[in-house]
Amino acid sequence: MTSKAFQDFYPDDLSHCYGCGRLNDHGLQIKSCWEGDEAVCTYKPRAYHTAIPGYVYGGLIASLIDCHSTGTASAAAYREAGREMGSAPALRFLTAALHVNYLKPTPLDATLEVRATVKEVKGRKVVVTSRLLAEGQVCATGEVVAVQVPEDLMPAAR
Amino acid sequence: MTSKAFQDFYPDDLSHCYGCGRLNDHGLQIKSCWEGDEAVCTYKPRAYHTAIPGYVYGGLIASLIDCHSTGTASAAAYREAGREMGSAPALRFLTAALHVNYLKPTPLDATLEVRATVKEVKGRKVVVTSRLLAEGQVCATGEVVAVQVPEDLMPAAR
Repeated sequence: MTSKAFQDFYPDDLSHCYGCGRLNDHGLQIKSCWEGDEAVCTYKPRAYHTAIPGYVYGGLIASLIDCHSTGTASAAAYREAGREMGSAPALRFLTAALHVNYLKPTPLDATLEVRATVKEVKGRKVVVTSRLLAEGQVCATGEVVAVQVPEDLMPAAR
Repeated sequence: MTSKAFQDFYPDDLSHCYGCGRLNDHGLQIKSCWEGDEAVCTYKPRAYHTAIPGYVYGGLIASLIDCHSTGTASAAAYREAGREMGSAPALRFLTAALHVNYLKPTPLDATLEVRATVKEVKGRKVVVTSRLLAEGQVCATGEVVAVQVPEDLMPAAR
């Protein structure tokens, strides 16, 4: 358990993701932390992240759920292995499947919170479920099947 | 059937979406057209739309599938109603559920193509399935349940 964000432990060559890479200047640079058994990420949408006027664009919601869930998968895999977060070799995850249910329009001027729970850790696969909240209301729910990045796709191997 | 993009028929006050609004200068500004019974959208990712180096960020793929599918839902609803695309009142759709399966890493330097098929039109609901291709390979598949924007959320009503 730590208050440093999961993404801050990613090695530099795995920190360019548009959603969660701290080295992607154009990206969302989300940060995820444990809060008990939930992993939490907050994000303030920019004005241009709009769908219909006043509401958040669904692709942003999908992106937040996606990257927060792969980050949570990484943290869960370290925890499961009894390893220090960020220790080498890196445990980094890709999304195999993403499912988002949009329950109600998400106000654009709110700070969004994604709260994720680890549903399953099995071999290289981690399943993460989540809720996206705005102003205390659940506006969307998500489920991500995350799979550990195969060795041949890791930058160090290429 | 027309070669003008679905999104070019959206009224101005519904054209600010980050994914598909022609009036969102920061956004993706995707364009979708019929090609027979399939709706097609092509998009060239920007260099910063990366996940692990060399591959497309999953949130972009989700966003393309999302907005292309709601655009296709709109076009399908006009077609179903025997109405001219873009005629008032506007038929504009939101996403109720989004499901994406990521089948293989999507190369960042390719032009992506999303090909969508209308699976069902029922009342205010349209279900759209799609494939995302890069270099002739299907890299992801999607299914979107799109629902017509309720009147009270339409800008004209607020």
